[in-house]
Amino acid sequence: MTQNKLITPRKLSGFMELDPPKQLLFDKMVEKIKNVYSKSGFMPLDTPVLEYREILLAKSGGSIDKELYAFKKGDTDICMRYDLTVPLARYVAMNVNTLSFPFKRYQIGKVYRGEKAQKGRFREFYQCDADIIGLEELPLVADAECLSIVDKVFKSLGLKVVIHVSNRNVLFGYCEALGASDKTQDILVILDKINKIGKENAVEELKKLGVNEENCQKLIDITLKCGNFDAILSQIENLSDNDTYQKGVNEIKEVYTYLKALGVDESCYLLDLGIIRGQNYYTGTVFEAMMPEHPEFLTVCGGGRYDNLAGYFTDKKLPGVGLSIGLTRLFDLLDNAGMLEKVKPTNFDLQIIPMGETICQCLKLKNYFENFLVCDVNYENRSFKAKMKEANRKKVPFIIIVGENEVKSNNYSLKNMYTGEQYNLSKEECLKVISQYLKQ
Amino acid sequence: MTQNKLITPRKLSGFMELDPPKQLLFDKMVEKIKNVYSKSGFMPLDTPVLEYREILLAKSGGSIDKELYAFKKGDTDICMRYDLTVPLARYVAMNVNTLSFPFKRYQIGKVYRGEKAQKGRFREFYQCDADIIGLEELPLVADAECLSIVDKVFKSLGLKVVIHVSNRNVLFGYCEALGASDKTQDILVILDKINKIGKENAVEELKKLGVNEENCQKLIDITLKCGNFDAILSQIENLSDNDTYQKGVNEIKEVYTYLKALGVDESCYLLDLGIIRGQNYYTGTVFEAMMPEHPEFLTVCGGGRYDNLAGYFTDKKLPGVGLSIGLTRLFDLLDNAGMLEKVKPTNFDLQIIPMGETICQCLKLKNYFENFLVCDVNYENRSFKAKMKEANRKKVPFIIIVGENEVKSNNYSLKNMYTGEQYNLSKEECLKVISQYLKQ
Repeated sequence: MTQNKLITPRKLSGFMELDPPKQLLFDKMVEKIKNVYSKSGFMPLDTPVLEYREILLAKSGGSIDKELYAFKKGDTDICMRYDLTVPLARYVAMNVNTLSFPFKRYQIGKVYRGEKAQKGRFREFYQCDADIIGLEELPLVADAECLSIVDKVFKSLGLKVVIHVSNRNVLFGYCEALGASDKTQDILVILDKINKIGKENAVEELKKLGVNEENCQKLIDITLKCGNFDAILSQIENLSDNDTYQKGVNEIKEVYTYLKALGVDESCYLLDLGIIRGQNYYTGTVFEAMMPEHPEFLTVCGGGRYDNLAGYFTDKKLPGVGLSIGLTRLFDLLDNAGMLEKVKPTNFDLQIIPMGETICQCLKLKNYFENFLVCDVNYENRSFKAKMKEANRKKVPFIIIVGENEVKSNNYSLKNMYTGEQYNLSKEECLKVISQYLKQ
Repeated sequence: MTQNKLITPRKLSGFMELDPPKQLLFDKMVEKIKNVYSKSGFMPLDTPVLEYREILLAKSGGSIDKELYAFKKGDTDICMRYDLTVPLARYVAMNVNTLSFPFKRYQIGKVYRGEKAQKGRFREFYQCDADIIGLEELPLVADAECLSIVDKVFKSLGLKVVIHVSNRNVLFGYCEALGASDKTQDILVILDKINKIGKENAVEELKKLGVNEENCQKLIDITLKCGNFDAILSQIENLSDNDTYQKGVNEIKEVYTYLKALGVDESCYLLDLGIIRGQNYYTGTVFEAMMPEHPEFLTVCGGGRYDNLAGYFTDKKLPGVGLSIGLTRLFDLLDNAGMLEKVKPTNFDLQIIPMGETICQCLKLKNYFENFLVCDVNYENRSFKAKMKEANRKKVPFIIIVGENEVKSNNYSLKNMYTGEQYNLSKEECLKVISQYLKQ
């Protein structure tokens, strides 16, 4: 190989790249999420990372254009997906005649957003989505099912979350009742950021839309309602007799009934009318999961109900409800907060170290232990001392030293690197000692 | 949502998109491969899909430029990765001072090649790679370890393969000995395609390079040597005393010794001097796994030894050896040959079907069964008959029907959809019957 001028190795900024011990922890989280989705009867889907640009822009109408990784290949306008929902819509629309509904799919994959790089923002990140899609209709039980899955996922991850639930029809109806239905979307945008901008600024912005002082206060009051379902329901159920409002209240009640039937622990969810969710495709139930001990993490999982998944692609009505976890961001938050499991610098349980010309005997031993353990032979051309140092540094739990005497006697020198205990045992006995220790 | 003109949902050609039951089988294969890599002590790495174009082109010097998905984002020249090896080289070069060597990593991820779309060729496909990288040196045991992993992976997939092994130094040295060392690369390109173009055409092409008739024959004869290690080694070990040639022969012998020590079944590998591997970065051991019962599948896994992984990025010498499985192509081949496991249209073990107003009782039952089974409630607003038909179509193994009488009596009507057997039992007894059947 000719030695050219060296190119400095570097990676694009805003792209997470974990070292392998941390990647192992990340993969474990993926595994747990996948497991919950799968046990809840969701089937996997793996759509391409690339789509026709026209398909990805169908829904947004170009508003996210700037964030897209879009390019031409030959004559084709191509785009990297920016979420997993539009590809799902495209997939269901293409296969609507052969799929069986309700269609429950999960997808865990990378999505791409060319946002300004900043701490905690990633341009490539994993979304872990589960959605239930109905044909023509989808009962509200599905909404409760999604909420119970959120609960299960975070329990499986060992993270305490509370799911803040609302229903968009409540605020839709409330705006209608206040005679502001033409400004509903703008009003919701302002109410969505009360916590960020403060009450007073929210009032100012609402006034600019032409909402009067009294109604501003009413809107803010209702948005700030947050507590257990029974308490909040009793406060809001008679606030308005607007049909959309009452539809929202009744949907909340029905979902609540199902949540109780599903046995979801009542301390794990709240009715919070401040949950609005930016995307305007949500049409009913909306929710965000937060970690009460880490409010600074903000939303760690969100989702909701949409009336029509694929209206841009098919005439068939496809109502759905889903949840999404931005795992790359969550992992980064947990990592920075020191909340990850302890990393294991190696996944070896045992390292076999040859002393002298015993490499083939070591390989045979490896072959034996591998049926039970993750086992490695240190076959490097380095001194015995260097190898011992390396085993220590890697925190391999056990080592076996194989010199020529050990080969002759069929008894091996086993060392527990944590306790320092040493043994001289047959391979079968070594296995017993190691297995017993690792089981603890 | 305003109903615009519909956009026809379509996906880019050359991109595999499996329906969920098949995706389940694909994911199972990924799981098995990952499991072997992981149990062999390899740690996961997950590099970004996007890299600086300059980095990806460092090695190839632009020769694969046409195939690349490359584009500009702002001022940055970006590229989608076309393999997992260059990103590994970039990663190791960036982290060479903190990694511990030998560095064993696996990566299972999608790569992108904008090749002409044709049957069996994919523009987005999974590579499942495992590599061992040394610092300054890496003993030949690592080559044998990679070969034993190939063997284990395919055994875990239930696929019979034979690994064809060679060492490039043999043909390098042979060319040297014939006085054609300046043309070695060109000669290897021709020898690599003997099976495709036939012996006679190969001779013609070799002659064009200026190789004489006798040497043409010699080159073809040695390239066609293929059989068990003992037999072929005895035929070739004295064919030339060229140093490089003898180095190749000795390396083969050493790897063979380790393969035996590792207990790899001798019927699973052959010495085949026709294995050359296109990429000119291989410098020693090279191998390809083939399925003897399906020669038309050609190579299902390949790999080999390279002297220097990251010579374009660092002065540190990083020899390595690795293997790669193109899983998307392999899955497609198995699918077309009818060799996949039977697909399961659903992953539910049990579906609970409400009759009348029993949905909450059904959810409570689901909550109970979910601790043991994958269980679903059919909560659709459809007739009982339609639901039964659906359960049949989905091949759900068991259904439980929950009417008001069942709720009162706490005894449920359980049906085995495969045998047609019906029971009337408590939920605990239902669970026993189902578990027993599913265990078979």
